[in-house]
Amino acid sequence: MKATETAPTAADIRDARERIAGVARETPVYSSETFSRIAGRDVWLKAENLQRTGAFKVRGAVNRLATLTESEREAGVVAASAGNHGQAVAWAARQAGVNARIYVPQDAPMSKVEACRTYGAETVMVGERFEDAMASARADVEERHATFIHPFEDPIVIAGQGTIGLELAEQVADAETVVIPVGGGGLAAGIAIAIRELRPDVRLVGVQAGLSGFTIADGIFVKQPGELTMAILDDVLEEMVEVDDEAISEAIVLLLERSKLVVEGAGAVGVAALLGGKIGGTGPVAIVLSGGNIDPTLLISVVRHGLTLDGRYLVLRTRIADRPGELVKLLELIAQERGNVVSVEHHREGMDVPVAQTEVELTLITRDQEHVAVLLAAMKSWGYEVERLK
Amino acid sequence: MKATETAPTAADIRDARERIAGVARETPVYSSETFSRIAGRDVWLKAENLQRTGAFKVRGAVNRLATLTESEREAGVVAASAGNHGQAVAWAARQAGVNARIYVPQDAPMSKVEACRTYGAETVMVGERFEDAMASARADVEERHATFIHPFEDPIVIAGQGTIGLELAEQVADAETVVIPVGGGGLAAGIAIAIRELRPDVRLVGVQAGLSGFTIADGIFVKQPGELTMAILDDVLEEMVEVDDEAISEAIVLLLERSKLVVEGAGAVGVAALLGGKIGGTGPVAIVLSGGNIDPTLLISVVRHGLTLDGRYLVLRTRIADRPGELVKLLELIAQERGNVVSVEHHREGMDVPVAQTEVELTLITRDQEHVAVLLAAMKSWGYEVERLK
Repeated sequence: MKATETAPTAADIRDARERIAGVARETPVYSSETFSRIAGRDVWLKAENLQRTGAFKVRGAVNRLATLTESEREAGVVAASAGNHGQAVAWAARQAGVNARIYVPQDAPMSKVEACRTYGAETVMVGERFEDAMASARADVEERHATFIHPFEDPIVIAGQGTIGLELAEQVADAETVVIPVGGGGLAAGIAIAIRELRPDVRLVGVQAGLSGFTIADGIFVKQPGELTMAILDDVLEEMVEVDDEAISEAIVLLLERSKLVVEGAGAVGVAALLGGKIGGTGPVAIVLSGGNIDPTLLISVVRHGLTLDGRYLVLRTRIADRPGELVKLLELIAQERGNVVSVEHHREGMDVPVAQTEVELTLITRDQEHVAVLLAAMKSWGYEVERLK
Repeated sequence: MKATETAPTAADIRDARERIAGVARETPVYSSETFSRIAGRDVWLKAENLQRTGAFKVRGAVNRLATLTESEREAGVVAASAGNHGQAVAWAARQAGVNARIYVPQDAPMSKVEACRTYGAETVMVGERFEDAMASARADVEERHATFIHPFEDPIVIAGQGTIGLELAEQVADAETVVIPVGGGGLAAGIAIAIRELRPDVRLVGVQAGLSGFTIADGIFVKQPGELTMAILDDVLEEMVEVDDEAISEAIVLLLERSKLVVEGAGAVGVAALLGGKIGGTGPVAIVLSGGNIDPTLLISVVRHGLTLDGRYLVLRTRIADRPGELVKLLELIAQERGNVVSVEHHREGMDVPVAQTEVELTLITRDQEHVAVLLAAMKSWGYEVERLK
């Protein structure tokens, strides 16, 4: 427990709240009818995806910037991240009138780098790996006496994230359980310290993305709690649970479709845990949606995957005789069963396709798994060999 | 101006606000850095997509349900719509403890019908066209003395939608312009009446989806203002502008990516008009995002289309020699230029493909239009004939 000697106190978090007021947003909470029904208990969503820059990280960054000395302000701040932390530092520095330099690998997604630039930071693309960016940031600290802002191993940053706990204690006063994503652990540590003091009986559950989850919840997968945050979490969390990519994917789609909220993978792990029955307890649950910065191309894949699991997308392969009118006949039969054709691919040749036949791959919009089953059965009864691809 | 004799007054709207308090939500407004920068003036978004059932329609429905007599409550209510209006009536009826019967065509999207059922309404799927559902609803009114709830030609419904105007006058007190989607016109009429009284100097701009826009803004395209709403709008709107599908599509993607909000086509027309420079005026603008109920399969197409316009998706066709190693060589060259391959399609035969060659269709994730240009130029310099498909 040595490291917790530097853990922020509830008083530090109250100070942080005053510093960030009017700069970071007090984000709303929403009751969710869909999730409450699924879970059989009241479910509240803390929409931190609607925070400035799209994630909770600005709270810590604003608090950190507000505590710089005059000479530190003049030397500027640096961060090594093109993700939520980097964008938050860029944004908070601009608000504070301080220069920020954000170091990122050359391959960092352009949309993230652009965001940092738009927020007024100097961005430096360097090297192939994250470690290269980190080394350059450290060199900047050495040479220009800039302040390196760590994404989570910093009590002032943790205190900033903890302001969410103060808001939650007011917004969902009857919460029995609070569910918090855990990446580096700064968010969970801060919220837990605040809630432990104000609502000592609340159960605090941390959620991590399982090791398989490197594509969807990248915001938290690359991180593990640090020494400071881990010591705090060991002390204050009731439980730590894990979720996988499938569950996160389903959570993202439901949040999008039902709650009209764009939530990134790392931000949706709490809902994923709820859907998987991993939260425990019985009373009202408040779930922190930590951010909404998901790449649109990834979002497309996730939604498509979710719809396929739900039977609302059907990709199938079949064969038709290679003569005029056969494709039209097939499409008419499918329309009759109310399958909505998105695309048709024709393959006139292939190793396994008999000479007089053509292979056709169809993508259809369907209603649900039952509709898929009815449609496939109908095609078979008309004499088509059908293979479902996804 | 005969019809305006029955237009609701600002006092009716204040009464409505009291009736819907605690049932419908008072939705938040968000300042948008992205849109403010693009427009060169402060832009505020009224997030009515976060309303109960995902659209503003519950305001009017709750107000209408609250004004039923005891015998009307017993006979129940009916609506002909599986869209936002139908869902709103279903939801409001359940909250009021009244039976609702929602008539929809057989082909109505299952997700919408499901939503009405989940909200506790009886749903009746009847006929092929909207008119069939409408006829059945009218028959229900005749036979069971049910109350038909019109989506907009009803002063009590209009007064309910007008409560948004009261909220906006408080939330964005310095708005110089308020921008409102116009479909049936009930939303715009209600908001305009409220704002005209509280903030007589505010410019009110209505936005319609152009006639080409039947796919994306279906929520407003199918409707035209009615006699009552048109009379009100003629009287109170400064201007009516039109936007097309491309602009709506771009607005949806920006709202999703930057504001983390899921907004349907009909709800995004105000932002589309802003992006197209069609709003006029100079001061702060408040834009009503009227709803978020977009079908996820449509959302996927819209986002993909938006990314392609932005140079972040590239589909191209080229040819390679039909011998081992050629495809790998091509893919390595593309990787070198940092194109991220999403899919590869091989067509070994085709009318225009020489015998010793294979046609390859590639889908790549790219950074921006500049990256696309560099990548296409590199491929040409390596000797590939390249055709960009979208």
